[in-house]
Amino acid sequence: MSLRDEMLALGASARSAARAMREASAESKNKALLAAAAAIRARRNDILAANARDVAAGKAAGLTPALLDRLTLDDKRIDAMAKGIADVAALPDPVGRELARWTVPSGLDIARVATPIGVIGMIYESRPNVTADAGALCLKSGNVCILRGGSDSAQSSAAIHAAMVEGLRAAGLPEAAITRVPVTDREAVGLMLEGLGGGIDLIIPRGGKGLTGRVMAEARVPVLAHLEGVCHVYLHAKADPAKARAIAVNAKMRRTSVCGAAETLLIDRAILPALGVDVLGDLAKAGCEIRADAEIRAVFPNAKAANDEDWSMEYLDAVIAAKAVDGVEDAIAHIERYGSHHTESIVTEDKAAAERFLSALDSAIVLWNASTQFADGAEFGMGAEIGIGTGKLHARGPVGVEQLTNFKYVVRGTGQVRP
Amino acid sequence: MSLRDEMLALGASARSAARAMREASAESKNKALLAAAAAIRARRNDILAANARDVAAGKAAGLTPALLDRLTLDDKRIDAMAKGIADVAALPDPVGRELARWTVPSGLDIARVATPIGVIGMIYESRPNVTADAGALCLKSGNVCILRGGSDSAQSSAAIHAAMVEGLRAAGLPEAAITRVPVTDREAVGLMLEGLGGGIDLIIPRGGKGLTGRVMAEARVPVLAHLEGVCHVYLHAKADPAKARAIAVNAKMRRTSVCGAAETLLIDRAILPALGVDVLGDLAKAGCEIRADAEIRAVFPNAKAANDEDWSMEYLDAVIAAKAVDGVEDAIAHIERYGSHHTESIVTEDKAAAERFLSALDSAIVLWNASTQFADGAEFGMGAEIGIGTGKLHARGPVGVEQLTNFKYVVRGTGQVRP
Repeated sequence: MSLRDEMLALGASARSAARAMREASAESKNKALLAAAAAIRARRNDILAANARDVAAGKAAGLTPALLDRLTLDDKRIDAMAKGIADVAALPDPVGRELARWTVPSGLDIARVATPIGVIGMIYESRPNVTADAGALCLKSGNVCILRGGSDSAQSSAAIHAAMVEGLRAAGLPEAAITRVPVTDREAVGLMLEGLGGGIDLIIPRGGKGLTGRVMAEARVPVLAHLEGVCHVYLHAKADPAKARAIAVNAKMRRTSVCGAAETLLIDRAILPALGVDVLGDLAKAGCEIRADAEIRAVFPNAKAANDEDWSMEYLDAVIAAKAVDGVEDAIAHIERYGSHHTESIVTEDKAAAERFLSALDSAIVLWNASTQFADGAEFGMGAEIGIGTGKLHARGPVGVEQLTNFKYVVRGTGQVRP
Repeated sequence: MSLRDEMLALGASARSAARAMREASAESKNKALLAAAAAIRARRNDILAANARDVAAGKAAGLTPALLDRLTLDDKRIDAMAKGIADVAALPDPVGRELARWTVPSGLDIARVATPIGVIGMIYESRPNVTADAGALCLKSGNVCILRGGSDSAQSSAAIHAAMVEGLRAAGLPEAAITRVPVTDREAVGLMLEGLGGGIDLIIPRGGKGLTGRVMAEARVPVLAHLEGVCHVYLHAKADPAKARAIAVNAKMRRTSVCGAAETLLIDRAILPALGVDVLGDLAKAGCEIRADAEIRAVFPNAKAANDEDWSMEYLDAVIAAKAVDGVEDAIAHIERYGSHHTESIVTEDKAAAERFLSALDSAIVLWNASTQFADGAEFGMGAEIGIGTGKLHARGPVGVEQLTNFKYVVRGTGQVRP
């Protein structure tokens, strides 16, 4: 069988599993999730052995330490994976929720009811835990997923996938509900982006700019965009000094590798010589490299010179770009021009300035007096998430189980015909 | 300037208008709409003269009577267009609505707030009134639209567009908020489908299968799908005879040219010889051609023989396909196989059968004891609509002003940092 035929067959079986999953009860989905969590724990040795083979191959292939770290599993990460699946089981069922209901003058009773999306193609890179996370979130939301992980983590993903399928089997749900693409061929991704002959309703890419860019450029089916997070913290003229210092350092340094980490600090000219310098000092003391414009370097000479590319860089590292701005409108204009519509925060005690910032910006998440690192499904009370949507359609911000549903209209009448 | 450069410039000016429109007040948008409605009436003679030129050219080019009818404007249609715009002004403002609001344990106050989508590319065919309808709905929802109508209606659209721009000007809103693509070149559509260098966030095609198919196959930006309506009416074994007769005839014959018109009638075997034959007789008497399977033809010999293509035909005419089915599961299986996920109705007094039908089908609209012709934004209480979404993402069903918005999260804190 050619790769194309193999992939089309996989799409067809995913499509036929989608109807069963759409109607699967909350009980059976939760049973599958808990059984999968148990299977992850029970198969711990298999998973670790498979992962050791991936890591050895990765070392031989010269993967960077950061990539090797993402790839490596240990007991703690396996426990976290199993707990993550069980946590998803504990969430309320997102399917069948009545989102709205009203009666119209004709007497029709109209309800907007949450439905699964259908078949979701996940294309991701080296983290093998995405196999468990994405599988669990799709299962809970009544969707079928087709998982295509990176070749670096192929053995680990296969072992984790086997545990997920064991969970589906325990609950009598179709095994194709969590399908793993067994080939690491790049062409398989191309076939998924074409939609597998109607077998895929939505593609969610998770990974670096290269992968996401390719997916968005080539996909013939809808894509839930998860672009980079060029997140901003703006210290307004009326910022509370303690809040400003705490938020700026936390937003950048708590974890530098997450998409909600701040990448650019905007400092209002009015507070630059005093509070601004204090904040920059705090960042430098915390081990952060600062790349600043001339105005900031005049008062904080330790900063390196920023060039134009720094304003749109997602460092994902202990580096921050810093720029002086002249009031809230200037800050908004900078973010509009260089940002990625992910997450931005203003620190101020001036309510009018805050509301202006919150209302003017078109980012998925805008915050007032809080760290950008709160850009996270769990922190939003949504449970686990598949990522932070930065597109213009469907879900923006954290994509949890509710955001993996859509809706239909259920209309109950008493014999109405339209005049 | 090359066509490509011209189109890119148009995308750039639409993008810059999008920020102003996103923040435009309800008052200024409504002022623009009412001024546009007045301008449509005031420019009546210009619009009719432009339309007469389109109609003359269409006749010379041999357009079908149906197409010529869609193209032709008269006083009544112009009044309806103006009234439609004023009706949109009277709708509640969809932007800034607080869709949900909650507080999380960290103390953050999180609100999900409705936002415009941005720049919407509308690609449509011969009906010139789409220029007014789509322009009004996009304006009300704070979006910018780039309208690319069919070449058949180019002169009419230009005259209507001039009136819309007069409205924008009267309210001090940017004229690019309703942009009309001045060239009828097919290549212009291709450039729009590529996204005009980031100038388009969403494409909405309105037209026949050929246009929609091309848009869905070629678009590099998100598409809000408006596919055909292969809508079904299923007469269940426990159907009330009076309701069945009224609903079947209304669903097919009230207006045969709308996407919510029934195209296939499924008749339960149990009631075929009695009620089924009565309903078929009613349809035939109303002037409807019936294309049926052998089982139906055995009891209703006037029907023509259906072939396999009839089950997925969108006739948009006084023709209906008719098939005998064996219970609700058989009806569901038929609709799943041949339907277009638009609108389906079950006629029954059996609540369990009805709820099974409503829950099992994944169509945008499912009805119980009501005509499929209710698939309409105004009938749903949403006001005017741009179409009925049949895709899997974002809005399904009627797409009115609320469905032309998305959301962002506005988070208010008191200095929170993430542990």
